[in-house]
Amino acid sequence: MSIQNNYEAIMAGGIGSRFWPVSRTKHPKQFIDLLGTGRSLIQWTYHRFKHICPKENIYFITNQQYIATLKEQIPEVSDENIISEPSRKNTAPCAAYFAHKMLALNPNANIIMSPADHLIMDERAFERTCYDALDFVAKNDALLTLGIKPTRPDTGYGYIQYDVEDEIDKVYRVKTFTEKPSLDLARTFLKSGDFLWNSGIFVWNVKTIVNELEKHLPEMNEVFEQAKDVYNTPNEAAVINDLYSQCTNISIDYGIMEKAKNVYVIPSYFGWCDLGTWESAYDNSDKDYLGNAVYGSNVMIIDATECMVKAPDKKLVVLQGLEQFIVIDTPDVLLVCERSREQQIKEYVAEVKRNKGENYL
Amino acid sequence: MSIQNNYEAIMAGGIGSRFWPVSRTKHPKQFIDLLGTGRSLIQWTYHRFKHICPKENIYFITNQQYIATLKEQIPEVSDENIISEPSRKNTAPCAAYFAHKMLALNPNANIIMSPADHLIMDERAFERTCYDALDFVAKNDALLTLGIKPTRPDTGYGYIQYDVEDEIDKVYRVKTFTEKPSLDLARTFLKSGDFLWNSGIFVWNVKTIVNELEKHLPEMNEVFEQAKDVYNTPNEAAVINDLYSQCTNISIDYGIMEKAKNVYVIPSYFGWCDLGTWESAYDNSDKDYLGNAVYGSNVMIIDATECMVKAPDKKLVVLQGLEQFIVIDTPDVLLVCERSREQQIKEYVAEVKRNKGENYL
Repeated sequence: MSIQNNYEAIMAGGIGSRFWPVSRTKHPKQFIDLLGTGRSLIQWTYHRFKHICPKENIYFITNQQYIATLKEQIPEVSDENIISEPSRKNTAPCAAYFAHKMLALNPNANIIMSPADHLIMDERAFERTCYDALDFVAKNDALLTLGIKPTRPDTGYGYIQYDVEDEIDKVYRVKTFTEKPSLDLARTFLKSGDFLWNSGIFVWNVKTIVNELEKHLPEMNEVFEQAKDVYNTPNEAAVINDLYSQCTNISIDYGIMEKAKNVYVIPSYFGWCDLGTWESAYDNSDKDYLGNAVYGSNVMIIDATECMVKAPDKKLVVLQGLEQFIVIDTPDVLLVCERSREQQIKEYVAEVKRNKGENYL
Repeated sequence: MSIQNNYEAIMAGGIGSRFWPVSRTKHPKQFIDLLGTGRSLIQWTYHRFKHICPKENIYFITNQQYIATLKEQIPEVSDENIISEPSRKNTAPCAAYFAHKMLALNPNANIIMSPADHLIMDERAFERTCYDALDFVAKNDALLTLGIKPTRPDTGYGYIQYDVEDEIDKVYRVKTFTEKPSLDLARTFLKSGDFLWNSGIFVWNVKTIVNELEKHLPEMNEVFEQAKDVYNTPNEAAVINDLYSQCTNISIDYGIMEKAKNVYVIPSYFGWCDLGTWESAYDNSDKDYLGNAVYGSNVMIIDATECMVKAPDKKLVVLQGLEQFIVIDTPDVLLVCERSREQQIKEYVAEVKRNKGENYL
């Protein structure tokens, strides 16, 4: 496997509404240093992939409105490596588009599709896993996903069941995908030992994915095949802009992975977290002795336990009497809600939209 | 009784720390329109007294640092009517100073000493009571206080017991003063029917109060007697500035009222509230059907009950899961605490001072 054949598509078009009010439509969470690590989530993601493939092979797929922020945060990325998604259409159109673009560029391309906003603690383990994955898809006609060994019965994640007996080089055949399960089901999954969290990181050779698109999403595949002569030319953006609206809004998981026969997973251990919610940010934070995760240099806890608190450094926050709450303060929005209710934040945001328009989104 | 002999001293030097973080040392609550009524508390107080005495007879006693704000809020007040208190010394020195200044100006003066930051709903009833009080002290050698018929066993107020049988023209002789009682005691007071809240509004003739000062606070009285030739002259401020430090820090209640024999009270009904705390602001607020008192045009209650919420109009506040909390947001401070703990806000402020210095006070 030549490293020159490795390509990376960082999917960075999401709006991260479950991280509202810190994540905003205009400045979503991938561009934010949520945990105060000194780099935004997308900067870390880019940083990680620079060890896996040449930086010319790292692409960003994002929405037009985020391109300026992206360039600001990663100035070294060239315009050719920024793909503007004409509209939000979930991950399958994004994967199909990128596959066809790569096919035109390098028919031996091995591709990693990765979200921009995940937290990964063990970079070296991540690199090793990616190399193994790229190597596997270069040699096998396989759709590969990275599965995370679950540590708790999280109901916010998707689960992958794999066949523990069907193994080649630590890669296992996938039996089923299950979207966000009930708590009971999640507990059963955890006990059974053959379930992994779906990281949303997919790895495949360009020929494999195009084949599978032909089989399972033939109409969508045709849309992108039509454009084969314009990929990687100055006309690409305009042509795709016209074609994109013909795509169905569907995820990679649902559109391809759950239907294909050649789906594999690598059980992985690299300190992964979706960081999709305040709860996951809380889990990944250092806490004080009362279990409070505090971001902001002027937060005074009078008495509060197991709270997730974030405020601008200059703002003095005095908290008393809160147990297991999320308190997020920004210059124009304050959110106070129970940690157990944070799956509802999306609904609150929808409510805000109905009542207040787009101003606070 | 000539209206020309009526004088009013509005005591406006307090820092209102129990209303932090809206009330600040630099801009305390008397200068704030806490309940969104269109006027600050001191503006309302001035407005009320304009009906009771000529505006030339209305004086403000305040701290040097608030004079600019006072002039801004009440531009028509002349410099001669603003008395700068050299330091914070509680209410007795303030009353003694004003008594001697009035004695030099008009030996027939009838004086009302009133806090600047009380809420009074029924202006006309208040006027009538003040007239009755001024009339009584003009004719009788009496220290008079306005007592409020209590409506709940509030432990934040002082209580006055009066002799229901010793009445002259609806004015009663006072038996005892009790500072902030326990809840049990407050309940007993309420039941007994002969207890009133101490409004902190005092009425007396200048000769009476000077006599009583001589008796009960002779040293303090002497301090201000020394300055008799400079009152109402350009030298007054400088001389008082030198003398003031000799005064003890003591309240009118403790220094005079609890000791004097000729103390009377008028049981009053004019919709009074000390508005000393967020709790009292809550009590005096309109509430939504869940019992939330909300100030701020962009507060979204997802579910919260019996909360006191105040935020700038532009700030979007989303609240979920709070029961009986105070949520006060300002540009640089956010306070979230249980309503039952609001008597501790003063301590929080002290804690802030220890930890963060004066910046947030």
